[in-house]
This record gives sequence, structure tokens and C-alpha cells, in this order.
Amino acid sequence: MKMKAAFFVLTSALLLALAAVSQTPAGPKHHAVFQLSEPEGEDWGALIRHVNNMRTAFEKDGGVEIEVVFYSAGLNMLRKTNTAYEQPLKQLADKGVTLAACQNAMRAMNVKTEDLFPFAKQVDSGVAELVRKQEAGWAYIH
Amino acid sequence: MKMKAAFFVLTSALLLALAAVSQTPAGPKHHAVFQLSEPEGEDWGALIRHVNNMRTAFEKDGGVEIEVVFYSAGLNMLRKTNTAYEQPLKQLADKGVTLAACQNAMRAMNVKTEDLFPFAKQVDSGVAELVRKQEAGWAYIH
Amino acid sequence: MKMKAAFFVLTSALLLALAAVSQTPAGPKHHAVFQLSEPEGEDWGALIRHVNNMRTAFEKDGGVEIEVVFYSAGLNMLRKTNTAYEQPLKQLADKGVTLAACQNAMRAMNVKTEDLFPFAKQVDSGVAELVRKQEAGWAYIH
Repeated sequence: MKMKAAFFVLTSALLLALAAVSQTPAGPKHHAVFQLSEPEGEDWGALIRHVNNMRTAFEKDGGVEIEVVFYSAGLNMLRKTNTAYEQPLKQLADKGVTLAACQNAMRAMNVKTEDLFPFAKQVDSGVAELVRKQEAGWAYIH
Repeated sequence: MKMKAAFFVLTSALLLALAAVSQTPAGPKHHAVFQLSEPEGEDWGALIRHVNNMRTAFEKDGGVEIEVVFYSAGLNMLRKTNTAYEQPLKQLADKGVTLAACQNAMRAMNVKTEDLFPFAKQVDSGVAELVRKQEAGWAYIH
Repeated sequence: MKMKAAFFVLTSALLLALAAVSQTPAGPKHHAVFQLSEPEGEDWGALIRHVNNMRTAFEKDGGVEIEVVFYSAGLNMLRKTNTAYEQPLKQLADKGVTLAACQNAMRAMNVKTEDLFPFAKQVDSGVAELVRKQEAGWAYIH
């Protein structure tokens, strides 16, 4: 009887250990965080293109969860004044892509919540967010 | 007798779990994927230099498997018209470095397979390739 | 008696496996390696700002160990001639941030140890160092 109990305890512990090793994620199979810290120019259009290309590439391979972190001069891409990119950014947000403004950049550049597109999220620190995501197993693209 | 069998099963499971944890890779000890998305200029020469420096640094430490993913304006580095870099790139390919052109960039820039150096490989999406490699444990350098 | 011994061995092995899985780090909870390879300009001030912002963001979340790897034209930021950034860099070093010069860049640019700030460390290869840190679980920021 005691042996059976020991066997049960050991088997449960083993299953837990194996579960921890396999780390099966819920939701999309792939996870990527993009950094957008550049001023207006070639990089802004490239971001839209790359996010869409990545979504297409992983469409038949489990899907991909994407977050873009905007900071430094890149924060301007999320401002309402940036009408040229409002539609493509809104389309990304509508597809579930997280577009996150860095609150440190907002303070430094005196940008308020109401200055940002309504679909923009916020994170306390852009660089810390990039670390958190990588620690959680997300791939990083800059 | 039953105890011996249980012991055997548990020990096997433990060894499997430990093997999964240690994740012993076959081949080179280190793995790195480089992103080359910049137009012609300083970054192209730097890429050649950095790949060679990394290979040298890991020569006595298990070796390194390297892939360079070329996309956006960086795709031009793999075109036959880029005679200035043909030799150093061919030398990297001969050493086993994978030089991969993004097919999305090829379509967008109307670049055909026959326009690329014969030693160039292709991937469906440059950014998706960077994600796959990082998910497989490769370090990312941009 | 033999069963007790077997139970002890298995339990010990399980605990070791679980310890390996959990990979409890000593010291700070977070780890990040920055790449600084750009010539003097906007990127130098941004580096100081981003390192300080990250430290602040993780202050109440276990702390963060940070290393900055300086190479290519970025090596110049660690030269004594760069008086404009001596104080902010020294302040980072005093807080425990590792500022590491790439010895390949030093050779290529004929920079000697005595040309660097006294608080600068050195690594054999900047790009190899970025790989080693990522392999050790550090997040990468460029």
C-alpha cells in the first residue's frame, strides 16, 4: 500500500516535470515582438509590410501573436497626427496585433493618451517590455 | 517483480526528462542568425567582418552554425550585379554559412532566382525565418 | 530496505530534474545585453536613456543585470576622447552595468586599452559575446 502511494507520488512528480519541460503554449504557435524606434521614413512602411508578411507566413503553421513596441522617435508613428499610417495600423490592431506605446517616450516627448490612436496600448517602458517578451519565449525582431 | 518493473519505468522516464532538459544539440555548439536588411553601404562590409569574427571566436569553443537572412533593401547584396561582394559572400557559403534570400522581398523587388548568386538559398519570409530560428534556440544579431 | 533506498534515489533525481527545469537564477531576476555599434549621434544618448529606463522599470521587479557591448563605430563611445559621455557612462558602470569593448574592433581601429575609459571591460568578439549572452538566457536589445 505504501509502495503504491510512493509510486503515485513519483509518477505525478514526473508528469509535472515533463509538463514543465514541454511548456505547451496556449493560443498561437508563434510569438514575435517588433521594435519600432525609428523616425518617420522607410522603416515605418517596412514595419507594416513585415508584420503582414509574418502573419501570412505563419497562417498555415499555427498562427503568430505579434506585439509592436513603439519608442524613441518611433512613438510618433502612433500619434493621431500620423494620418498616413492610420489605416494600415488600425488594420493590424483589428487583426489582433498589439501596438504598444512606451510611457517613458510619451513623458519625454510630452505625448498624452489622447494624442495616440485609440487602438494604441501602452507599456511602462519599451525596452523593459522587449525583455519581458523575450523572457517569455517571444522572438525579437528589429 | 512488480516493483522492479515500476523502478525501471520511473528511471527511464527520469532519463528522458533529463535528456529533454539538457537539450544536447548535434553539430556546432553555437547557432546564430544575422539579419541583413540595409541598403548598400557600411552595413554590408560589416556583415562579412562580423560573420568571420564570430566564426573565429567560436573556433575553439565548439564551432558556430550561421545563417544570414537577406531582406528589404538588403536583398540586393545577394544579386549577381553586386560583384564587389561576390567573393567574400562565396567564401562564407563555402565555409557552410547559409545565405538566405527572402522570397517576399524577391517578389516585391522583382528579383528572380537567376538574378541571385548561385550559392544563395531562399526562405519564404525573412522575418518568419528569424522567428523560427530564435524559437529553435538560435541567437539573433542585427 | 532496498525499496527505501530506491525511493530515496528516485526522489533525489526528481528534485535535481525539477531544479534544472526551474533554472532559478542567482542575483537579479532579469538579464539584458545591449548592442551599441553606431557612430556618434542620436543612438549614443538613447543608449544611456534606455539603460536607465530599464533599470527603473525593473527596480521593483527583481532588478536587472545589464551588459552593453560596444563594437564597430560604437567602440568610440568608450574612448577617453569621448568626454561628452564620460559621466553618464561612469554612472552606469558605478551602478554595476558592464560596458564591454570588442577586442576585434579595438584591433581594427587601433584602439589600445589605455585609450578606453578605465571602467570599460573587454570581450574577445562583440558578436560572439551577444551570442553567448543570449544562449545564457539574456534578452537582446539593439
